[in-house]
Amino acid sequence: MDRIKSKDSVWASKIMTPDEAASMIEPGMTLGTSGFTPAGHPKVIPPALAKKLTSLSKENTVNLYTGASVGDELDGELARGKVIHRRLPYQTQNDVRNQINDGSICYLDMHLSHVPDQLRYGYLGKVDVAIIEAVGITEQGEIIPSTSVGNVPVFLDQAQKIMIEINTSQPEALEGFHDIYMPQMPPHRKPIPILSASDRIGSPYYQIDPEKVAAIVYSDVEDSVGDFKAPDGMSQCMAQHLISFLEKEVQAGRMPANLRPLQSGVGATANAVLAGLQASGFKDLQFYSEVIQDSVLNLIDSGTFSFASATSLTLSKSGRDHFYGHMKDYRNHIMLRPQEISNHPEVIRRLGIISMNTAIEVDLCGHVNSTNIMGNRMMNGIGGSGDFTRNAALSIFMTPSTAKNGDISAIVPFVSHCDHTEHDVHVVVTEQGVADLRGKCPKEKAKELINECAHPDYREALQEYAETYFQHHHIGHQPSEALSWHARFIKEGTMKSR
Amino acid sequence: MDRIKSKDSVWASKIMTPDEAASMIEPGMTLGTSGFTPAGHPKVIPPALAKKLTSLSKENTVNLYTGASVGDELDGELARGKVIHRRLPYQTQNDVRNQINDGSICYLDMHLSHVPDQLRYGYLGKVDVAIIEAVGITEQGEIIPSTSVGNVPVFLDQAQKIMIEINTSQPEALEGFHDIYMPQMPPHRKPIPILSASDRIGSPYYQIDPEKVAAIVYSDVEDSVGDFKAPDGMSQCMAQHLISFLEKEVQAGRMPANLRPLQSGVGATANAVLAGLQASGFKDLQFYSEVIQDSVLNLIDSGTFSFASATSLTLSKSGRDHFYGHMKDYRNHIMLRPQEISNHPEVIRRLGIISMNTAIEVDLCGHVNSTNIMGNRMMNGIGGSGDFTRNAALSIFMTPSTAKNGDISAIVPFVSHCDHTEHDVHVVVTEQGVADLRGKCPKEKAKELINECAHPDYREALQEYAETYFQHHHIGHQPSEALSWHARFIKEGTMKSR
Repeated sequence: MDRIKSKDSVWASKIMTPDEAASMIEPGMTLGTSGFTPAGHPKVIPPALAKKLTSLSKENTVNLYTGASVGDELDGELARGKVIHRRLPYQTQNDVRNQINDGSICYLDMHLSHVPDQLRYGYLGKVDVAIIEAVGITEQGEIIPSTSVGNVPVFLDQAQKIMIEINTSQPEALEGFHDIYMPQMPPHRKPIPILSASDRIGSPYYQIDPEKVAAIVYSDVEDSVGDFKAPDGMSQCMAQHLISFLEKEVQAGRMPANLRPLQSGVGATANAVLAGLQASGFKDLQFYSEVIQDSVLNLIDSGTFSFASATSLTLSKSGRDHFYGHMKDYRNHIMLRPQEISNHPEVIRRLGIISMNTAIEVDLCGHVNSTNIMGNRMMNGIGGSGDFTRNAALSIFMTPSTAKNGDISAIVPFVSHCDHTEHDVHVVVTEQGVADLRGKCPKEKAKELINECAHPDYREALQEYAETYFQHHHIGHQPSEALSWHARFIKEGTMKSR
Repeated sequence: MDRIKSKDSVWASKIMTPDEAASMIEPGMTLGTSGFTPAGHPKVIPPALAKKLTSLSKENTVNLYTGASVGDELDGELARGKVIHRRLPYQTQNDVRNQINDGSICYLDMHLSHVPDQLRYGYLGKVDVAIIEAVGITEQGEIIPSTSVGNVPVFLDQAQKIMIEINTSQPEALEGFHDIYMPQMPPHRKPIPILSASDRIGSPYYQIDPEKVAAIVYSDVEDSVGDFKAPDGMSQCMAQHLISFLEKEVQAGRMPANLRPLQSGVGATANAVLAGLQASGFKDLQFYSEVIQDSVLNLIDSGTFSFASATSLTLSKSGRDHFYGHMKDYRNHIMLRPQEISNHPEVIRRLGIISMNTAIEVDLCGHVNSTNIMGNRMMNGIGGSGDFTRNAALSIFMTPSTAKNGDISAIVPFVSHCDHTEHDVHVVVTEQGVADLRGKCPKEKAKELINECAHPDYREALQEYAETYFQHHHIGHQPSEALSWHARFIKEGTMKSR
């Protein structure tokens, strides 16, 4: 009870068990939850809800809208119960992924910054219940967010009912790390007044109508983020290419010595890049991104990063221990914003972000596939990569040049699914090197990608394709040939022609 | 001489003939010119330049950077002389198109709003000479733009030398219709303070360093824009579907009665939509777009549009006569901005624009091809369609459901080139009807597109494809099948299976 400072009796009257909260959620409802990659999601109501829904005989599904990927307590429990009908905007959970790919979950793969407006504009139906994690309620009845913000502000605004999980495993000292700001609707919308990654423009709290609160549930389940793995050789190699490239951009006078604010995806390659920055001579960089991983803390500790703005604190157990032990030191260096703001095109274009994301495959024109393997198996989703890529001052994609023991080339004639178009992709990095596509036409891009990024095993075949279809054309693909490498892999298990 | 009000002798000293101006332009140079679709381009120096360059024996090409498409005096003369090496960011001229497609012109097909930043960031090389059309020079030595703004501000800023064509066929009364604003470079960039299509944020003039002026040439060649053609039945039918859809959005409460600010592409379908709005009951709409065509004048006259913001006044001879006869009446209803601002993601997202553009083809997931027929013949380029589509509150694409007497279906299993991804396309309109893709997953989008937009001749085959590859998948394309319709057209002259 000491996490609720407000004396208003309305709060205490709503405290209940997860089962009691879940009993208010009916099949057919749309749930909007906290949680982002996968920090700060609700962890005790969803399992109770899964239990309830699976016990129903029919019509037992709900729609699940989140910030991005969420933990097993939410996506995993509901998916294993087969009770998710519609899911947006991003996921990384195995059971959810399988049900998306067999067609049983209806998945909307959306730009993360687009969700709030599409909800407000009425394109995604009504949100019935917002279920959010918090660390407490202030004397004034404001809600203190936990380790992520995500889409919570818009869910709280749009939902009929609100359920709050107060997670006592998350420290109350998280108070003050958040900056909650919600744009008005057009035609009353104002500029978002962020001029630097560290600018505070809103409130540290969610303001809600207490009348909408249907349940308050206590939880002590920790965020579960896998341990930070030391980067492998492949990731380190790509990271080194990328950092050398940035150094050359500074030398060429195209960037200041402290670069421009960085955005970084999540995962092994992103971690390697961040670790590589740690070892580089760069200082006083800004980070304006989605996710703060363990490596970002190290970069702040060393002065490489002066400030990190994101929408989630996705820390491993040891990262959390470190952070919780030094929160005072991080207070002027970290801010968590709604994903609508962390990923907002207005801010990204204004700040001149360098975006760094991973690709599944890249084609000879520079189109990037981020989502569907062989054009027919959804991995995770586009996430924030589009929000950043198309508004960045410099957009970078990274991928190993091959996959499946060399049987798949990441540089292909034609992407089997397009998430980022030729009009937006500036730089591609593989372990082979860096292709700089800026200022180039398709045939020049093809040459650069083949020479700098393709694996030697595939260079000759790509060269042949480029000579046939690009040399005396703008883009000269023949539909019967464009996807032949993918077709060969499916038929023969390799993209290599024998 | 009376078009130059400044008493500074620097101006008069630079007056010369087109041939004298052209003599200062050397092969290998990059030219940045005025001109947008195709108003306000320079009209007398380029033909003189074409003559000079074609008389040289070798190494006789230049790079041509413009706002968008430009008139025959520029693109046509230089292309027929075979003296264009590199061209960006958009074109619609036959000779240029042919040389792009045979690989002899290196074409960078760019988002129109991206050109200024990519120049400033140093990605597109140096601009040697800016050649711009103007209607005069003020007492203070400021330049009064003519019928378009386009990329002129950034070209003037970046170019080593400036050449000005003072076009006496364009009235001096154009003074005051322009609003010239140039964002600073990060990290000093501020919010663009446009809160409404009619907001003035800059100066009516270009401010330049007179020392950079290399030539002033007089011209009296009129803009040549084809006459406004009455919409055909196909276009009228699509326009009617679109307007009914917007009316239903208002009825459903998803839009105010005066909609949201409209962006409209150029061409027959766009004209039909604008003509249809004229006949509709809508009033007091705002237009925040790229191009003001004749039909926009009519919409202002009738009160359907209260304000039109764009980057060019692309008027036919009769449209110009009407406009020039009533400039006083239009002064508070029309503003011309740099294309960086007319197409800026920040402003588009803030105002909540409804974007309306044409597609070449749309696939069952909602990906749109705007540029390359059969994936291998460049039509014009992406233009501003991406700038608007991906930041719009509502993004709409229009296309007849078939082309080539029915042998091509515009609704295809898989696009042969992707310019706009599934993540960004909200609504598709054909003469068959309106597919509303909002809030839908791929299999639902496929169903909607087949039922509402596909031509009856292709519905059954599309249905079969969707059942095979979407019903029990998220997106289940097989690479060997995805482009089979295009391959069949190339082989057999029709997408219909016999």
